[in-house]
Amino acid sequence: MSIQHYVLTLRCADAPGIIHAVSGALLSIEGNVLEQAQYTNERTGMFAMRTRFESESTDIEALRAHVEQATASFDPIITLRNEDDRHRVMIMVSQYDHCLVDLLYRQANGEIPMDVPVIVSNHEVCRPIAEQYGIPFRYIPVEKGAKEQAEDELRAVMAEFDVDAVVLARYMQILSNELCGELEGKAINIHHSFLPGFKGARPYHQAYDRGVKLIGATAHFVTGDLDEGPIIEQDVERVQHHHTAEELAQIGSDIERLVLARAVKLFAEDRVLLDGHRTVVFA
Amino acid sequence: MSIQHYVLTLRCADAPGIIHAVSGALLSIEGNVLEQAQYTNERTGMFAMRTRFESESTDIEALRAHVEQATASFDPIITLRNEDDRHRVMIMVSQYDHCLVDLLYRQANGEIPMDVPVIVSNHEVCRPIAEQYGIPFRYIPVEKGAKEQAEDELRAVMAEFDVDAVVLARYMQILSNELCGELEGKAINIHHSFLPGFKGARPYHQAYDRGVKLIGATAHFVTGDLDEGPIIEQDVERVQHHHTAEELAQIGSDIERLVLARAVKLFAEDRVLLDGHRTVVFA
Amino acid sequence: MSIQHYVLTLRCADAPGIIHAVSGALLSIEGNVLEQAQYTNERTGMFAMRTRFESESTDIEALRAHVEQATASFDPIITLRNEDDRHRVMIMVSQYDHCLVDLLYRQANGEIPMDVPVIVSNHEVCRPIAEQYGIPFRYIPVEKGAKEQAEDELRAVMAEFDVDAVVLARYMQILSNELCGELEGKAINIHHSFLPGFKGARPYHQAYDRGVKLIGATAHFVTGDLDEGPIIEQDVERVQHHHTAEELAQIGSDIERLVLARAVKLFAEDRVLLDGHRTVVFA
Amino acid sequence: MSIQHYVLTLRCADAPGIIHAVSGALLSIEGNVLEQAQYTNERTGMFAMRTRFESESTDIEALRAHVEQATASFDPIITLRNEDDRHRVMIMVSQYDHCLVDLLYRQANGEIPMDVPVIVSNHEVCRPIAEQYGIPFRYIPVEKGAKEQAEDELRAVMAEFDVDAVVLARYMQILSNELCGELEGKAINIHHSFLPGFKGARPYHQAYDRGVKLIGATAHFVTGDLDEGPIIEQDVERVQHHHTAEELAQIGSDIERLVLARAVKLFAEDRVLLDGHRTVVFA
Repeated sequence: MSIQHYVLTLRCADAPGIIHAVSGALLSIEGNVLEQAQYTNERTGMFAMRTRFESESTDIEALRAHVEQATASFDPIITLRNEDDRHRVMIMVSQYDHCLVDLLYRQANGEIPMDVPVIVSNHEVCRPIAEQYGIPFRYIPVEKGAKEQAEDELRAVMAEFDVDAVVLARYMQILSNELCGELEGKAINIHHSFLPGFKGARPYHQAYDRGVKLIGATAHFVTGDLDEGPIIEQDVERVQHHHTAEELAQIGSDIERLVLARAVKLFAEDRVLLDGHRTVVFA
Repeated sequence: MSIQHYVLTLRCADAPGIIHAVSGALLSIEGNVLEQAQYTNERTGMFAMRTRFESESTDIEALRAHVEQATASFDPIITLRNEDDRHRVMIMVSQYDHCLVDLLYRQANGEIPMDVPVIVSNHEVCRPIAEQYGIPFRYIPVEKGAKEQAEDELRAVMAEFDVDAVVLARYMQILSNELCGELEGKAINIHHSFLPGFKGARPYHQAYDRGVKLIGATAHFVTGDLDEGPIIEQDVERVQHHHTAEELAQIGSDIERLVLARAVKLFAEDRVLLDGHRTVVFA
Repeated sequence: MSIQHYVLTLRCADAPGIIHAVSGALLSIEGNVLEQAQYTNERTGMFAMRTRFESESTDIEALRAHVEQATASFDPIITLRNEDDRHRVMIMVSQYDHCLVDLLYRQANGEIPMDVPVIVSNHEVCRPIAEQYGIPFRYIPVEKGAKEQAEDELRAVMAEFDVDAVVLARYMQILSNELCGELEGKAINIHHSFLPGFKGARPYHQAYDRGVKLIGATAHFVTGDLDEGPIIEQDVERVQHHHTAEELAQIGSDIERLVLARAVKLFAEDRVLLDGHRTVVFA
Repeated sequence: MSIQHYVLTLRCADAPGIIHAVSGALLSIEGNVLEQAQYTNERTGMFAMRTRFESESTDIEALRAHVEQATASFDPIITLRNEDDRHRVMIMVSQYDHCLVDLLYRQANGEIPMDVPVIVSNHEVCRPIAEQYGIPFRYIPVEKGAKEQAEDELRAVMAEFDVDAVVLARYMQILSNELCGELEGKAINIHHSFLPGFKGARPYHQAYDRGVKLIGATAHFVTGDLDEGPIIEQDVERVQHHHTAEELAQIGSDIERLVLARAVKLFAEDRVLLDGHRTVVFA
């Protein structure tokens, strides 16, 4: 019988005994902890935990019931996933393809453990990339005043392909508050600036005008409050006075794809837990 | 006769022949170029140049006249300095002493070629540090509604010690527009955030609340428009979800002092030239 | 009754039930876990764990007995420390003072939670720095052929001041194999290169000759095998073709002090555990 | 008549008047300097310069003659290139494709101004990538004891496609001293470690065993002395104790492709000049 690998995450109000309860539950099912991380936010009293363990059991529902029972008094929010059941991630893109290309390359070589069942775009230009990887490509243009209809199409595609997460890989349309709400904690965006600096449009031109010495990118969860969602990952690169706004954009595209790739990988491995407007990242 | 080292900077509207005119002037006085950098801002048409050269001449006024004559048709703004005539920099500080301590250490060991004839503070706590280095310390408190009087005292101190530049090393009072105007291009501030993110007060608490994954610091020229002066240098450090706002401040203090030290060194070596709201940094 | 904070570390061969045993022991003494990290080296089978917890008990020996009893079957190596009982760290230095100055500054402002009961040097130049901080300074020169005698003096100083750890803050003498053995896991050195590049003397000159584009520093535990001890922390800084070896050394000194300060802080908080020639760092 | 852009590089023994001679030559042909950088190695006395200028002339041979005549007394090594005449770069690869994919992507989107007329490999696996970009792919296996023959094939391919530079994008065969000599200053290799650490095979496994906290990559010119050629660019990424050697390799592959891409771009823009075993990089 082969060994199964599971990832458990758990969030609840802090109280003594949580770790003991979880470790007891895992021990009783002969689970062996491979990796465990825990964090208590002393300001909010939130306890967060991620445990990766191995077990001979293939009955994930029995495992889940076991853990739920052992921790019931803490009333936690629990996720439990067999690592073989990968997240099904829909990638959305507009015209800039560097993030899409990078994610597909990393997915294909096994670096990011996820499935990409479908790619959606409001433009046709990235279709050949999808075809090259043999991934269905759905063109959903967003006509002026018809965002609602386009989003219904999106929802239908998500249902059709059983998608459980979305990555906006330089997708340039703003999602409605309603859709953002539905996707809470499940949709990741890459913003091409070091937030909270340079929110909004044309951030590299803003950065040029401001004369910054470093430019950056930010991967964050999507919320209705544009450019304000919980940050997952950020990074920067040094620039100089002689770089034009266009060169900043080119330098920035390297940071964008790296930052987005790291964020998606962290998400795909269930290492990112929401803590209000912030994230806990068990890297 | 010993060799003298000079630093020349020159800014003007771009036109063919500037470099040739300068190199000709230097050649005619048997100056030998050791280091030269040049930049043309193609958007604004500004030409900027910095040349470090050696010469046997000790007559700086003759050298200056020579260069001015050779470049007169370009109507440039010129600075020329014998490297032995170091900038006289007044350091201003409030209660946080880490930037002050760092600057004095680097000044004393020769890393930053400047003189520090006087230290000014609106608090008494840093007096022992000044005394340890044998530098006059002037306590100029800023009473409510009496900023004008305090700034007059500042001006008097600057005159008394023949100061030609000011470094605000975590000085927490806001200078008046008038004083900022007088100090244009001569006063450097360290802001404890990665501008333009987290302008204003308590930036580390803002950063904590926003859940950023990197924190930073920004050294910039002081202008009347608070936190908006031309940026000289920036850097960041990675932080994690478990860091409190206080820990961010502690981590940040390392970046602050490094960034400020780099900016002051660049300034002290005449490597920073203003280009509107931006800086040209010939590092 | 005030709350006490404790740090527990534990290393043993991996086996199911360790975390559960520890969390049970802490629970039974009404300890509340604030921070916990765990790592299993799947190649060597070593399990390592660090737990920071709070408890109303002030009886550390009773706590230790409790944990030892609960984990006896795993035969672990355990350390347990009340955070108020800080490590007593002797700093050794030769002539370059930047690391010493930096450590004392950080110790004094509370950033590094350790005591520095004594400073030892084979030169007199750093005595004023020690005096400024009111720390005893012992001058122990190392005469040619008399290293053994000097090291006996060192041992006597360590005993006199009840020292339990040593930091070599640019101490330029090589310790004997015997002394290295006695200090295993308790002595930290800063090497002014990015090991394993540029072992040995004059690493910045080696770096210059090799034309590297980044220079670095390495903090590591001292072992008899020079420059080969387990690495605790490293960092680098970008350099350019025009930097001389002397400038590399100056740029490098910033990295040295940052890297050493981080390593000492990690050590002072019991975050560094040995794993053969490698370290586990629960940052 | 359209404006032409030229890049001139010049190396010679330092002497007064070089800059003036060059600027005079450019002025006399109505060239306008857009970007100029200069460096004198005070240890070796080598003067190096790169000038990017615009001119209405399309007669590059006349321009070259003009510059050569004006600088003849300095006996310089000169290169002059119209930016539209891009370097013709042959990429060589074995089985790891991440650097190849990255270079082709950047070439295609205009980030790296070069032509890639042919791709050569000692394996077949990368053929589809070449086909996707419509670039001829030549399979040249290297049989044991038949390296000489394989290298003759290489030379023939280089001649056939009029190649003037070579990039080894994780090409795992060692070139003969003879071929290295022929390619001096024209062939760039990416080594998957932060040289001079971890020379030789399996550097990530070496890095794991040594327990380093940062891993890196190095792009360097190829020489007969393996892993010892002049370094063009390096960078690093932070790693932790829990990363396996395989994970180090995966993290490292991001650094490899970034470092190689930067080095190739610098080379393609004639920004890298040899200075003995070191490089001058006018970034």
